Amino acid sequence: FPGTFAPPPVSDPMWGYFTAIAGQDGEVDAEELQRCLTQTGISGTYTPFSLDTCRIMIAMLDRDMTGKMGFNEFKELFAALNGWKQNFMMFDQDRSGTVEPHEMSQSITSMGYRVSPQALNAIIKRYSRGGRIYFDDYVACCVKLRALTENFKRRDAMQQGTVNFQYDDFILCTMSI
Amino acid sequence: FPGTFAPPPVSDPMWGYFTAIAGQDGEVDAEELQRCLTQTGISGTYTPFSLDTCRIMIAMLDRDMTGKMGFNEFKELFAALNGWKQNFMMFDQDRSGTVEPHEMSQSITSMGYRVSPQALNAIIKRYSRGGRIYFDDYVACCVKLRALTENFKRRDAMQQGTVNFQYDDFILCTMSI
Ligand SMILES: [Ca+2]
Ligand SMILES: [Ca+2]
Ligand SMILES: [Ca+2]
Repeated sequence: FPGTFAPPPVSDPMWGYFTAIAGQDGEVDAEELQRCLTQTGISGTYTPFSLDTCRIMIAMLDRDMTGKMGFNEFKELFAALNGWKQNFMMFDQDRSGTVEPHEMSQSITSMGYRVSPQALNAIIKRYSRGGRIYFDDYVACCVKLRALTENFKRRDAMQQGTVNFQYDDFILCTMSI
Repeated sequence: FPGTFAPPPVSDPMWGYFTAIAGQDGEVDAEELQRCLTQTGISGTYTPFSLDTCRIMIAMLDRDMTGKMGFNEFKELFAALNGWKQNFMMFDQDRSGTVEPHEMSQSITSMGYRVSPQALNAIIKRYSRGGRIYFDDYVACCVKLRALTENFKRRDAMQQGTVNFQYDDFILCTMSI
């Protein structure tokens, strides 16, 4: 509800865009984000941007646990999305609009994740369609990898590379993203 | 390729159905499974069954890591799906075709998972749309919860309720589903 917001940052060029997408409740939910990303054509295709990826992105940023994004979260998301888009285009060297498995391995490694070839293969298999990785799946993969790694590191205070998980905590931090 | 199969189980009534869905390669991939589940109307709506849920289901059963299902995996999946459908209908008490948050909590608990209210809330938030849980999201949730719990228990040999995860193993067993 407008009354609960900070004053509209009239000088911010994204504010008008945000309010148009957010609609009456003043926040962006997964369906609104999907419509917005499909219209921007960020994935380079005319097919709808994955709703599941939209939900994962919102879950990643949604610190107040409402399932929706306010303006600051929305801006943060667009910054992250632009970073992933640049990364994606850098590794899509043949400009096919998809990233191939070996390009995906390089991309994940380039983002600083240190994962074994076995884990890389499992990730690539999970996020490819017909042997290729499309942009929305690429984003879903990046979001999850980032969130899981953050969840792990937050529990690995001594930076030992190992974490002792209780079952409930394991489920909480893997099922919510 | 047919030559690599076991002889067709001609007496099995599902064989003809399977081969029709599997197409030329004799195995069912995520797109084929999506088409099949959308046509059967198992979700009780005319909207396409979630492709992402199809991929998660295949990943759960795909022991030979091909990203596709053979006949036995296909039958196993249908058995699991029927179980989840019954469970879903049991908790959808107002026959709305969706499960409400409090029904979802009961459903998860009834399947024998022991998770805290906090974890339940996180799960429900992740899998609901507009405050409701649709069948395909319900299935995605069940598949993930089952796979994550199995992954956890396999590492918890002493049944202590805690597992010491190395980072790479944590990523492998959470990113592949
Ligand atoms: Ca809204
Ligand atoms: Ca490419
Ligand atoms: Ca096939």
